[in-house]
Formats: sequence, structure tokens, C-alpha cells
Amino acid sequence: MSVNKTLLEAFKETPYKTNGHGSRNAAVLKEAFEHVASETESDMYGTGKVIEDFQTEMAEMLGKEASVFFPSGTMAQQIALRIWCDEKELKKAAYHPLSHLEIHEEDGIKELHGIETVLLADKDRVITLEDIQNMKEEVAVILLELPQREIGGQLPEFETLQSISKYCREKGIKLHLDGARLLEVLPYYRKSASEVCSLFDSVYISVYKGIGGIAGAVLAGGEEFIKKSKVWKRRHGGDLISLYPYIISADYYLDQRAGKMEQYYHNAVEFAHLYNECEKVSTLPEVPVSNMFHVHYAAAKETLEPILIDVYEKTGVGLSGYVRETGEASCYYEVSIGDLYDTIPKEKLKEAFTLLNENLKQI
Amino acid sequence: MSVNKTLLEAFKETPYKTNGHGSRNAAVLKEAFEHVASETESDMYGTGKVIEDFQTEMAEMLGKEASVFFPSGTMAQQIALRIWCDEKELKKAAYHPLSHLEIHEEDGIKELHGIETVLLADKDRVITLEDIQNMKEEVAVILLELPQREIGGQLPEFETLQSISKYCREKGIKLHLDGARLLEVLPYYRKSASEVCSLFDSVYISVYKGIGGIAGAVLAGGEEFIKKSKVWKRRHGGDLISLYPYIISADYYLDQRAGKMEQYYHNAVEFAHLYNECEKVSTLPEVPVSNMFHVHYAAAKETLEPILIDVYEKTGVGLSGYVRETGEASCYYEVSIGDLYDTIPKEKLKEAFTLLNENLKQI
Repeated sequence: MSVNKTLLEAFKETPYKTNGHGSRNAAVLKEAFEHVASETESDMYGTGKVIEDFQTEMAEMLGKEASVFFPSGTMAQQIALRIWCDEKELKKAAYHPLSHLEIHEEDGIKELHGIETVLLADKDRVITLEDIQNMKEEVAVILLELPQREIGGQLPEFETLQSISKYCREKGIKLHLDGARLLEVLPYYRKSASEVCSLFDSVYISVYKGIGGIAGAVLAGGEEFIKKSKVWKRRHGGDLISLYPYIISADYYLDQRAGKMEQYYHNAVEFAHLYNECEKVSTLPEVPVSNMFHVHYAAAKETLEPILIDVYEKTGVGLSGYVRETGEASCYYEVSIGDLYDTIPKEKLKEAFTLLNENLKQI
Repeated sequence: MSVNKTLLEAFKETPYKTNGHGSRNAAVLKEAFEHVASETESDMYGTGKVIEDFQTEMAEMLGKEASVFFPSGTMAQQIALRIWCDEKELKKAAYHPLSHLEIHEEDGIKELHGIETVLLADKDRVITLEDIQNMKEEVAVILLELPQREIGGQLPEFETLQSISKYCREKGIKLHLDGARLLEVLPYYRKSASEVCSLFDSVYISVYKGIGGIAGAVLAGGEEFIKKSKVWKRRHGGDLISLYPYIISADYYLDQRAGKMEQYYHNAVEFAHLYNECEKVSTLPEVPVSNMFHVHYAAAKETLEPILIDVYEKTGVGLSGYVRETGEASCYYEVSIGDLYDTIPKEKLKEAFTLLNENLKQI
């Protein structure tokens, strides 16, 4: 067992990586642009064929009147909440305690927009209708994240979403969808994107998660909402002269992968099962409802890392480049299934999990 | 004379365009990436070799401790002013009435950051030391734009900059440089970038003006300032998972064009002279001090447009794709000299200006 190599180094050297679509390297851009004509004109500050066509396509897919391409979801979602707060003249928004806005954005929503936030539900479960009905404060907008990424990608049942949507409409509360991984949950729900989005007043979708583009996000909603979002996009410094490197690659990989979400989902279910058969391992959720899940180990990070390195070096299968500590004797990492999973020979996977299980039994 | 064709259409068809580096099309990206290895790893949320190397290079060029790559100058500059305002616990910034922040950003500085702005100098001239000395209000920071783009790219003398810098330091006012076109003014000043930047506490430079990249900006300053700017970059939604499409192209075109700024400047002086020899035409400034100037016509937009179309169609020389009205019988457009100017045969230019002058004499 190599002791000098870090987990990340050992992982990078494996020929069989189980997660994602492949390296985030320049090849992603080069492939997307290989067949793009050199004369293809850049977008110009939000106008031009390349951005307008994609926005139209995305609005149609999401069943909304209009959409706008943003450099990031962070920007798109803060702006969505701001517009709904301004409309109601109430600077309060509610979301899950582990929402991206709460834990990954340096409090942009509060620092830039002065919006107070109300946290719904416990950290370890998804938001229910009851959480919303029992809210003590009035809010302008509620943000729901599907799937709830920080707890392994859990989902409420579709009927719960319907009842939340109905309740919010009755109470005059706007409902915004953090659909960073929206396409990834459609196979479980057995719904189209527009069927899910019809429950929400505004929707954000990422183009570099399951779709595997380079960066960027789409915000969709009604005409008036989108018009306002473009003004805020300019204010945020997101109305770049050229966003085409992101748009063209988003369009390219969306075409390639929108039809593969069912496959990613089924592979995630199969893969989680392999994990759950090992000692001291459990996945969250136990049976995935999208292409993602978290792998929890009842072992200390320092104990697990050499075990994983051993598996990587002996089998060539790379399970994760990092492990995150959750306690003295517990840790986890995230799995998102993409194109790579199906390129790994099944016997290789079996070999890796047999060794992983043996190693875990010995601790 | 074609009457059905718009100015922009006629301009697009000309083989000899006088301004800029060429079309903003996908070829710009494809050329920059042609020799980039596919394995080149993406930056990841502001970290990684591709972004860190470029930031180090730019900090060195600008003579500052550190720099950070931003998706836009709009974002970079609002953040710079915010940091200086927070430091002084005074939310007031001063700049020119035609500053980018005042007229092109939908009041982001006010709406997102709550910063009050003080307008210095008259619209039609650059800021002087006296304007600053006579300011009635206390401000945390002053922004100077070099060159002042909206008035044709005018510049204060370098000695004025030095005295403004000295005054601000004595008074504890931070000085920020809007150096969107900083490299473009160095030949006139006969100074290095770091010599100019040494007069300022923080500096922004664009990578898609004279440099001709795709989009993006660099903010440079002291270590502490840059550290804070990264937090605000995250809040603004500018800390993208991958900025490499912009960074790699910025680096590529900076290498190609940083040494050409002197040539662009001299060509601008020559070109402005051609304009000024025509009837009813004057350039602002009369003798350019960078690669840019404005061309003002003592003619109505509707009168001028068919005249320009005639020149474009008969000589193949394209002078501008638009004309902006400034009054009933006056209009203008902007010229920025880049790579294209030197590709036009001199006799073609002469032919175009002879015809332009003849056409203008007849109105």
C-alpha cells in the first residue's frame, strides 16, 4: 500500500473513474467547438442569434415564456429571489438550511440584496408541506432544490410538490425552483421538465452538472420576470459582451446528454447497491432518485483513505478524489453518475468492490 | 446609392474595415485554443494553474501584489469601490459623469452596494486636480478612467495624475483606476503599466478591448484587497467553476498584442488626420492620445448614413457599422484602432476619404 501518494494523486492515475463525464479539461471546449463554423458570430451583451436561439430552446424545454442565460446559478438565483421580493415589497425568502445560497455564496443574497432568509426543515431531510404551513414568518418567495444536493440528492414525492405549489399559490407566495440538476430527476418523477416547472413561478437550471457543459445557468419564467432579470444581470456584472463559449458548449452537450438521464439514474441505483453491500458503507439515499448519491463510511477519514488508495492501485478503479470528514469515525463523498460509468467493465467494478469490502472488514 | 441597405449591412459587406481586430466570431476562440493541449486542466472556482498563472502574470505587469480574473469589469469595479467604501465606513465614491458605472450598469453600484456617487468635472472634459480639491463632500474612493472613453478617449497629462494621486494619499482618499484601455494609453504617456498603476490603490484592466480577448477583466491591488475581492466575486456570482475560455484567450491575445499598442496609437493619429481633412468632420480628441477617438459630423444621422453607405459600396472601405445622433444636425461614431488598419492598402483609404469628402461637400 502506497503511503506517500495522496488520495487525489492515486485517483487521478486510475484508468476507470466511476463518476462524472470525464476530466474538466480543455478537451471539453475543443470538442464542442470542433464543428462550429469560424464565422459563427458572438452574442453581444445578451443579444444575437447564438444566445437568443438557446434561450428560446430552453424556455420551450422548461415550459416557460422566456429564459435568459447567466454566467452562474449563484447570480441567477439571487436575482430571481430579489425580483419576487421586490414585487411583494417584502425582503424575505425561505429555503432549506443546506441551500446553495445559504452555504456556498458568502451570503450574497443578504450582503448584496438585503434579503432576510428563513430556513425550512431540518438539515437532514427535504422540505414538506407542513414545514411551509408551519412557517411563523411571512415570506415573498420559497426556493425548493430538486434534488436536495447536500443530503445526497433526496427528493420529495411529486404529490408533495403539487401540494406545496397549490398552497403557495393560494397564499400568494412565489415558488422558485433550484433545478441545478432538474433533468437528472425527471426519470424518477416520470415527468417532463415542463411538467415539473409548471409547479414553479421561476426556474434555474445548471448547464454543467448532468449536462456537462463548461459553466453557466439558465433562468426561466414569465416575460416580465425575465425582462427584470436582464436588468439585474447587468447590475451584477453578468451581462458579458460574449457568453458564447458557455452557450455553444451547453447546447452541444445538452443535445448529447438530455436523453441519457434515465441511463444515469439506473446506473446510480445499480452503483449504490454495490456500495451498500460493503461493510461499514451506506448510501444516502439508500436507493438513489437521480444520478447522484452520497457514500457514507463508518470509518475515520485517515483510516479510509489508504483503503481507497489500495483499491485504486490494485484494480485501476477510481471511486473518489476526496473524502470529507463528518465525525471522528465517519466520512463521506459524493457520487454523480455520468458517461464514464458505462465505460467500465463490470468485472473491474466487481473486483474493486470485493477488495473494498475486504479492506473494510479488516478495520 | 443603395437605399434599401442599412448602414450595418453595407458595413458588414466591406472587405476593408478600418476599426478593431476583426469580427467577434468563433474564430477568435478557435484560434486561441488551436495549440492548447486537450489535457490542460480547467480552473476550479478561482483555483488551478490556468487562472493562478495568469493572475500572477497580470499582477506583475501592473506592479501590484496580486490580481484576480473577473468575468466582467462591471463586477470588478463595483467590488473595488465597495471594498474601499467598507474600509472607510463611508459609502461614497466619486467619478466622471460619463463613467461606465454611471451610464452603462443600470446603477448596480447603487442598487447592489448602496454606494452614493459624486460626479466630478463637466461631461465634456477629464477630471482635474481642482475638481477633486473643490469637492464638497467627503468620499472613500475616486475612480479615474484612462482614457475617458465616452469623450473620445481623452487623457489628463501624467503630471496631473501624479498630483491627483499625491493629493488623494494626503487626504486618505483611495484612488481606483478604470484602466479598461490601460495598455492603449502607455505609448502616449511613455510609461510602463506599473508606473501608471503605482499612482493608484487598485486597478482594473479589460482583456477584450485593445487586447482583443473574448470577455473578462483583471482587478489588481494589495494582497488584502484582492483577498476581499474574491469573497465579493463569489457573492456576485462571478466565481465560476471554469473561466478558462476567457483566460486562455486573454493570455493568447495579450502575448500577440501587448507590443502593438504603439503601432495602434500612431495609426490612430494618422487616421484621425484623414478624417479631419474632410468637410464637416472633426475628431475628438483632434490628435488621439491612444488607439481610439470619436468622429463627429456636422450632419444629421439620416443625411450621413447614405453617404457612408455610398463610400462603403464604391470603395470597399467600412468606416463604422453605426452612427449615433447627438443633435438635429450632428452625429458621431467611435473608432478603435486594432490589427485591421494596417491590412488596408493606403490607396484604398485615400480613395475612401476622397469620396467621403466629396459627398460631404455636397450636403
